[in-house]
Amino acid sequence: MMQALYWDGARLRLQKRYPVPQTVKDSALVRVRFAGICSTDLQILQGYMNFRGVPGHEFVGDVSEGPAELLGKRVVGEINFACGVCEACQRGVGRHCPTRRVMGILDADGSFAEYLAVPVANLHVVPDEVADEEAVFTEPLAAAFEILEQVHVQPASEVIVLGDGKLGLLCAQVLQHAGARVTLIGKHEEKLALVRHAGVRTVLFSQWRPRQADMVVEATGSTAGLAFAIETVRPRGTLVLKSTVAQPHSLSLAPLVINEVTVVGSRCGVFPPALRALAQRTIAVSPLITKVFPLAEGAAAVRQAARPGTLKVLLRI
Amino acid sequence: MMQALYWDGARLRLQKRYPVPQTVKDSALVRVRFAGICSTDLQILQGYMNFRGVPGHEFVGDVSEGPAELLGKRVVGEINFACGVCEACQRGVGRHCPTRRVMGILDADGSFAEYLAVPVANLHVVPDEVADEEAVFTEPLAAAFEILEQVHVQPASEVIVLGDGKLGLLCAQVLQHAGARVTLIGKHEEKLALVRHAGVRTVLFSQWRPRQADMVVEATGSTAGLAFAIETVRPRGTLVLKSTVAQPHSLSLAPLVINEVTVVGSRCGVFPPALRALAQRTIAVSPLITKVFPLAEGAAAVRQAARPGTLKVLLRI
Repeated sequence: MMQALYWDGARLRLQKRYPVPQTVKDSALVRVRFAGICSTDLQILQGYMNFRGVPGHEFVGDVSEGPAELLGKRVVGEINFACGVCEACQRGVGRHCPTRRVMGILDADGSFAEYLAVPVANLHVVPDEVADEEAVFTEPLAAAFEILEQVHVQPASEVIVLGDGKLGLLCAQVLQHAGARVTLIGKHEEKLALVRHAGVRTVLFSQWRPRQADMVVEATGSTAGLAFAIETVRPRGTLVLKSTVAQPHSLSLAPLVINEVTVVGSRCGVFPPALRALAQRTIAVSPLITKVFPLAEGAAAVRQAARPGTLKVLLRI
Repeated sequence: MMQALYWDGARLRLQKRYPVPQTVKDSALVRVRFAGICSTDLQILQGYMNFRGVPGHEFVGDVSEGPAELLGKRVVGEINFACGVCEACQRGVGRHCPTRRVMGILDADGSFAEYLAVPVANLHVVPDEVADEEAVFTEPLAAAFEILEQVHVQPASEVIVLGDGKLGLLCAQVLQHAGARVTLIGKHEEKLALVRHAGVRTVLFSQWRPRQADMVVEATGSTAGLAFAIETVRPRGTLVLKSTVAQPHSLSLAPLVINEVTVVGSRCGVFPPALRALAQRTIAVSPLITKVFPLAEGAAAVRQAARPGTLKVLLRI
């Protein structure tokens, strides 16, 4: 038995005697060290995906059961548990496998627990240079790198990132390091300040003077942000949707046709580029940690994560 | 003075003494032979763009005033009248010039008239092999070729085109000739039959068995078509929006993010590829002509164009 935070659809409760996950063939058991709370987790605790079970899809931990070459290794893990045989899996995009389970999101218990079962194929050993608190950012950082996987970002590109939340701060840094000229627009001076060291230009939303950019990354998750993004991308430019606005919203896509905008939906990425960036210290993630809570204070941790101004909240397990 | 169809915001009327357009520097006067009625014209006659003046942006005609090398030549003309000096024009996409006028759509009289003024830079001489009634399709055919300008269509790509209207029929043929495997879905057996000679597979909407494709081209112009397109494009696939749904519609873009779909807004294209295809007879356009009306019967022509089952209606001028 183990301790875990369990979401029953109404409340997130600490269960002191929750069964340790059974590992099946090709999966490993991981003793979690840290888990991160993501905006998606907050949405799940409001009913998104109709999930029941142990939430959490960001973690770093140690392999306690599994193949010999991984035993005792410090690992992070990709969140989509794919079938491995379907057409999407054959094309190398198992994260789009139609029968996938998703850690802490869809039909699979997640990382807000002492132990976690993960397919061996999803695990990546963490380089020694990366601290635990940094390694837990691998998943969101991989989501930022996913933009480079999907879009050819040219060195002369002018990029505007909308939103100074966790994802916006990571995307701005990744794109700046890729050689683009990045401007981050947000509403919090203290958050914007976190990425200036990387050369990212920052502008408070209240002081924004409208202009257009080759590429706009929407990372606010709000309908207003989406409308702003559509206005801000230049004709024939690229609009990257990094955040889901779950509820239907009324908008006209006609401007996208008239201006021949390319809209790229972008979600999870593969881990190796993110782990390399963490090991080489090209992306700063530690400044994004607002607070660390013990697992037993999970409910308080979630409240903190939902509070305005908060960036990353970690659970120490 | 000349005859022209004039839209005053309430009625489309034949004016028998409308002023012949003044040609300014770098523009030519064209005596129109044929003009085509497009769905955009029908939208304009319902208030779209708040246009007042002579509608029409598809034509073939003869240069009656202009530079010596064009005088007497049979021409077609691109519809966006660009400034030529701004950043968009310098990038070679004058059709996105922010101060452009657009023939028969925005601040410029169009082709439902005996004469039409067009910037010389917009004119293209029609090869002798192309009949007048075919040449008038250059503009919509260029809009179909625009997809190839924007998207890398691979030979192994499976493409679904939604909508058996004029644009859908042209897009299906262009993509099939580009090497893709194209299926056209529509509601009219007699329209679907028009593109089978090109190797396009066709399916009646009522007999469609859901599957997904690498690329979906939305050419229905309806909100329902857009929702169907979002369901039909595979994860990481490409959705090309060829038609504008002018009114705001309520929909969630979350599936585009979750499935990492790329949405490409696509509008006008350049004329040379379309003229080459017409000269080489690789795309069949004549079968799309439903009826030809004289200019004086413009109102009847528009009524015919709006009638279900109609494809292209031409005005002989």
